[in-house]
Amino acid sequence: MTAARAPTDDQAPLLVDDDGTGIRRLILNRPSQRNGLSRDLMGRLSDALSEINDTPGVRVVVLAANGPAFCSGHDLKELTAARKENDGGRAFFAATMAQCSSLMQTIMGCSKPVIASVHGMATAAGCQLVASCDLAIAAEGAQFATPGVHIGLFCSTPMVALSRNVGSKQAMEMLLTGEPVSAARAAEIGLVNHAVADDELDDAVAGMAKKIAAKSSLTLAMGKAAFYRQRELPVARAYDYASRVMVENMLAADAEEGIDALLTRRPPQWRDR
Amino acid sequence: MTAARAPTDDQAPLLVDDDGTGIRRLILNRPSQRNGLSRDLMGRLSDALSEINDTPGVRVVVLAANGPAFCSGHDLKELTAARKENDGGRAFFAATMAQCSSLMQTIMGCSKPVIASVHGMATAAGCQLVASCDLAIAAEGAQFATPGVHIGLFCSTPMVALSRNVGSKQAMEMLLTGEPVSAARAAEIGLVNHAVADDELDDAVAGMAKKIAAKSSLTLAMGKAAFYRQRELPVARAYDYASRVMVENMLAADAEEGIDALLTRRPPQWRDR
Amino acid sequence: MTAARAPTDDQAPLLVDDDGTGIRRLILNRPSQRNGLSRDLMGRLSDALSEINDTPGVRVVVLAANGPAFCSGHDLKELTAARKENDGGRAFFAATMAQCSSLMQTIMGCSKPVIASVHGMATAAGCQLVASCDLAIAAEGAQFATPGVHIGLFCSTPMVALSRNVGSKQAMEMLLTGEPVSAARAAEIGLVNHAVADDELDDAVAGMAKKIAAKSSLTLAMGKAAFYRQRELPVARAYDYASRVMVENMLAADAEEGIDALLTRRPPQWRDR
Repeated sequence: MTAARAPTDDQAPLLVDDDGTGIRRLILNRPSQRNGLSRDLMGRLSDALSEINDTPGVRVVVLAANGPAFCSGHDLKELTAARKENDGGRAFFAATMAQCSSLMQTIMGCSKPVIASVHGMATAAGCQLVASCDLAIAAEGAQFATPGVHIGLFCSTPMVALSRNVGSKQAMEMLLTGEPVSAARAAEIGLVNHAVADDELDDAVAGMAKKIAAKSSLTLAMGKAAFYRQRELPVARAYDYASRVMVENMLAADAEEGIDALLTRRPPQWRDR
Repeated sequence: MTAARAPTDDQAPLLVDDDGTGIRRLILNRPSQRNGLSRDLMGRLSDALSEINDTPGVRVVVLAANGPAFCSGHDLKELTAARKENDGGRAFFAATMAQCSSLMQTIMGCSKPVIASVHGMATAAGCQLVASCDLAIAAEGAQFATPGVHIGLFCSTPMVALSRNVGSKQAMEMLLTGEPVSAARAAEIGLVNHAVADDELDDAVAGMAKKIAAKSSLTLAMGKAAFYRQRELPVARAYDYASRVMVENMLAADAEEGIDALLTRRPPQWRDR
Repeated sequence: MTAARAPTDDQAPLLVDDDGTGIRRLILNRPSQRNGLSRDLMGRLSDALSEINDTPGVRVVVLAANGPAFCSGHDLKELTAARKENDGGRAFFAATMAQCSSLMQTIMGCSKPVIASVHGMATAAGCQLVASCDLAIAAEGAQFATPGVHIGLFCSTPMVALSRNVGSKQAMEMLLTGEPVSAARAAEIGLVNHAVADDELDDAVAGMAKKIAAKSSLTLAMGKAAFYRQRELPVARAYDYASRVMVENMLAADAEEGIDALLTRRPPQWRDR
């Protein structure tokens, strides 16, 4: 695991690693580019998440990174090169932002829980990646920033995710000053679940992933989708919706099995999927 | 008060206690069932809240519990028994979820502030009860969990209340892992107002209740209703709405009395209701 | 700076001070009235913010106050006097609330970031002022309260701003009890960014203002407006909107300059406005 963070060649921008217990690790692997989200890398991430949706054996996803940084955001060289096009880059910029926004929503829409395992700097769209995951654990040395304002490009798409994790004043401070916050501060303001010692990151992430991998995949998928859906509804409609979800969940085999296992004091055997 | 937490018989599933100063305590009293929210108990709670709305002498409500646990959520035996019905339980499940969702909104809709006084475990719909109260104080030994995922039944309705108190990542951790959080952590993430030493719970709750009971009931009712209403509106509409509420409040006798009392340095005598 | 907090005469209810580096200070200056927001003072604040929008040289706004209190909220004597009118004050109350709500939204709508520099008490609409600023730093001795409930007048308009900064239970505690919270607690619950020692307030605010003043004004204006707009949208629509903002921002001269400066390792020279 520690070795996986050493710089490797960039020829495979995204590494995919199964541990045999239902935990799939997606590892950003452009260390020399600080894991900049090139169009190519974003495409690979989206494809990997789609594949995960269709792979019953994968129960939890961990998003990690190789090299000194977690992710530096968009690939600025790629964006700058597009300025030479006839439209000044407009079409390329629009396609890039659409792809990035779609990727972030694909993480939220992935039927399996996604845990960010963050070391080093997570900046701009890299910070957005963390905010878009369901859960996040950060090494003490990690830092988080939305520094676009330093280069005249406000982190407007990252703030969609950031402001759904973090209070308004705290999000605004990151966005308006561009200054990084420490892992400990990120935990305080809600951007990550926990900050842990650098050498405990892998164990902490593995521990959390293992707990979740032991649950019914059907139940996790129903619940995760319902979480993001109900969050956007007024309370009364959220309750109507969530009540319907609960009824369908009750009628699924896994709930019948789980409740019977509890009442008869035995471990459940999940049946669905 | 401490005595009230000792297990008592379950023959009165809900105890109602007035202290003579406008504070009504509703005490969950199914200690042998860890205060499981049977259909019967939910009905009694709803009835008690309706009665409180119609009882001017009640100014504040405290929701507490007898026995080792605060509330374990739905009565799983009752739900499981319904599986034997012709529809596999669908109608019973739907009615139960509708009743529960209605109960939680009845707490929010109650014209008097409701304070949860939490000791022991508050799990699933029990955690939702706490999240649905306007205020909550927890004893240090209290714990909070949405553990449905352990039994294949995601806490989808509890998350409606949880996610309106707690940040997304912190709510997701509770929902996806099912692990309990301590009272201290619940205070950090916003699920309760304060965590206090176990033997200070009653005093802390009584102190908060007494402060609120000294206010104008009309003012509290207007303000509480407006809080939940405005929270769901865009800012501009929220201001239009809240401004109208302020004007009506200004024209009520209690505001005239309260402001005059302040300006003439005397205690106010509330007149409304 | 410290001198500026000494009580001065109230003949200029709002002081305006430029420091020559793009930071404009608006200083509430009714110390004998604890900076109560009279209709006149609210008008002056709105006018000052409008002027700021039209003044390219102003890059950041600091909202501070003279005298022992930051701001005590509405001018209760002014409101009470209106009760003698034929309509019992209704028209005056409605106009006052409309003006106040408009002022708070003018702060949010101001194209330059606004930082509250808070010492002393910030109560009712004074607390709302702080909540309505983009950022806030508080001196340790500052306190925050929505105490209207003490005088029969629930802080319904302040809660619009408060509840968009602070969690529901924490906001409800302030609103239902009327009790003040310390600067340290205000930082914990998200109402302010940081609490600092009393004698470090000016330096802390100046440091934050200076950082922001160094950014592209165009970028700050685009980003700030987008922040409040996207916050009210469902995630998918927020991404569509923010993506469009990003594309326009990319095509602006300041982003081209900023990115080129980063890639060529030189300081940017902002061109827009």
